[in-house]
Amino acid sequence: NKYNIAVIPGDGIGREVMEATISVLDALNLDFDYVYGEAGDECLEKTGTALPEETIEIVRAADACLFGAAGETAADVIVKLRQEMKMFANLRPVKAYPNTNSIRDDIDFMIVRENTEGLYIADQEKLTDEGAVAKRIITREAESRIIDYAFKYAEENGKSKVTGVHKANVLKKSDGLFREIFYEVGQNYPDIEKEDFYVDATAMYLITQPQNFEVIVTTNLFGDILSDEGAGLVGGLGLIPSANIGNDGALFEPVHGSAPDIAGKGIANPIAMMLSAVMMLRYLGEVDAADKVDNAILKLLTDAKVLTGDLGGKATTKEVTEEIISLL
Amino acid sequence: NKYNIAVIPGDGIGREVMEATISVLDALNLDFDYVYGEAGDECLEKTGTALPEETIEIVRAADACLFGAAGETAADVIVKLRQEMKMFANLRPVKAYPNTNSIRDDIDFMIVRENTEGLYIADQEKLTDEGAVAKRIITREAESRIIDYAFKYAEENGKSKVTGVHKANVLKKSDGLFREIFYEVGQNYPDIEKEDFYVDATAMYLITQPQNFEVIVTTNLFGDILSDEGAGLVGGLGLIPSANIGNDGALFEPVHGSAPDIAGKGIANPIAMMLSAVMMLRYLGEVDAADKVDNAILKLLTDAKVLTGDLGGKATTKEVTEEIISLL
Ligand SMILES: CC(C)[C@H](C(=O)O)[C@@H](O)C(=O)O
Ligand SMILES: CC(C)[C@H](C(=O)O)[C@@H](O)C(=O)O
Repeated sequence: NKYNIAVIPGDGIGREVMEATISVLDALNLDFDYVYGEAGDECLEKTGTALPEETIEIVRAADACLFGAAGETAADVIVKLRQEMKMFANLRPVKAYPNTNSIRDDIDFMIVRENTEGLYIADQEKLTDEGAVAKRIITREAESRIIDYAFKYAEENGKSKVTGVHKANVLKKSDGLFREIFYEVGQNYPDIEKEDFYVDATAMYLITQPQNFEVIVTTNLFGDILSDEGAGLVGGLGLIPSANIGNDGALFEPVHGSAPDIAGKGIANPIAMMLSAVMMLRYLGEVDAADKVDNAILKLLTDAKVLTGDLGGKATTKEVTEEIISLL
Repeated sequence: NKYNIAVIPGDGIGREVMEATISVLDALNLDFDYVYGEAGDECLEKTGTALPEETIEIVRAADACLFGAAGETAADVIVKLRQEMKMFANLRPVKAYPNTNSIRDDIDFMIVRENTEGLYIADQEKLTDEGAVAKRIITREAESRIIDYAFKYAEENGKSKVTGVHKANVLKKSDGLFREIFYEVGQNYPDIEKEDFYVDATAMYLITQPQNFEVIVTTNLFGDILSDEGAGLVGGLGLIPSANIGNDGALFEPVHGSAPDIAGKGIANPIAMMLSAVMMLRYLGEVDAADKVDNAILKLLTDAKVLTGDLGGKATTKEVTEEIISLL
């Protein structure tokens, strides 16, 4: 198979981790056709828009998209791309790797985040005389879709439980509906255990009993918050990839941002971006290649000899990349 | 001074930890007049309402209110009380005590949570044909007030930094306003350092660098989520008190709920409720008495001989209470 891959490095360390990841992909025996697109702060400065129509077209035409990171314009770029491409499912694995600052060794769960609505619909926010009002939109359609996606994910990946997360005691109508749909849809998956928690309780349980989670499904902003908390649990954002999946497109990006403080120094940890590429490979059905990169990363972390600063090492992005390629 | 204290034990372990706390207060040489009010699930069953007008009147007439916990009706009771009494500031200290499952020893920060608006205004939620919509209300008035409260708190308590938490990259108007007000109000406190983070990043930093926080100020639901995460950081909800403060009233409650799973067994940890009473004593200006109870609790935790199950001990609520009284 020949794959057409949209590549959007973006700003800051986005460019560095993307370059590193492309050289790992190039070391596999696969046929990739990369089409580069611009987006982000520098693109805004240069072209007057943070997300040119041309870039959206590149993503639309591709089999999958790799996205690095955007700076201040991140919301305008990534939220818009998610919505334009109707990539409704945001998958964020939280997994403890060896030799990291993970609070426990046995953390391994997936956050399935709704990616199109909630508080993320920009034109639903208004300034008023007294302040401002934002609307949190919860539709039956989008929430059923994401909940079904989460149960399917559990089924296909040998997970035994799905946890629905909401704030239905306060948001009685909107999250009351979410909870209702969660159990409705769950009926189609009789073999999967179901439980639901309030988002505040979940924020606590993630620390006190993270090993009890397998798949979490939740609304957009709660998923945003809980997945960064998940990153904290396993030692930071350097290792958290993500997938944005829709019916007509998919985009893979590290959960971290453009990290202006370390950008340009060649010391960024490329692993979150590489693990995002692994998610892309699985999405494309290239399971062997995905396993290969996955295992090389696991080996690198287990050996703990060539690590970037965030993981307590001294290696550069380039050294980590070369080591991973040699481990393939 | 004679104090008129409204006492609302509520449901489940609320009753048990309240009884324990009242006996500690009785062991101090202060003049308290307790007026008991009903609220919660059992009250709903008995009287047809979870929060009778009479209870609100008792709280209104009191110098301060002690609140235990409510069950399923918690939102109807506590959110309504906060709003009726205009208790706009919710203070939630997160502090590492010895011999707990705290992830570090040096955690000690205060979350100052806006308590009246955001997504908590029930009549702002509507069912629609397609789903439901909730409105997140951010007013200049309420946010200025809570931000000013946080800076004043920092000033009066020897804290050097206040962190404003929001999601202004996505909620550009409402949280953009919050951030703007944060720095506007902050100008009146030139000696206090200011910083602001996105809520998702904060959820991560709370785990990776909790020791760097001193005072966090944020909107209602973010404060709810982050304070439960804070509880997780220091080993669970058994030790987290809170204060709801307004111009005409104040209510003190543990952050934990009614815990139906252990209710009636006499094994609930009463310390979060007792620490809430300590916050009440400080609010009333009874600093010596507050210090006395505070020190007794610290001694109990340091000795680690008489602890409830959540802290790895085997003691009953009553044994912990007697030990604390003997340490006064
Ligand atoms: C940059 C921002 C808009 C984005 C989000 O809130 O979704 C980011 O935090 C993420 O998690 O991908
Ligand atoms: C019971 C619930 C309505 C409440 C809240 O969300 O404020 C609780 O979680 C809290 O933190 O006091």
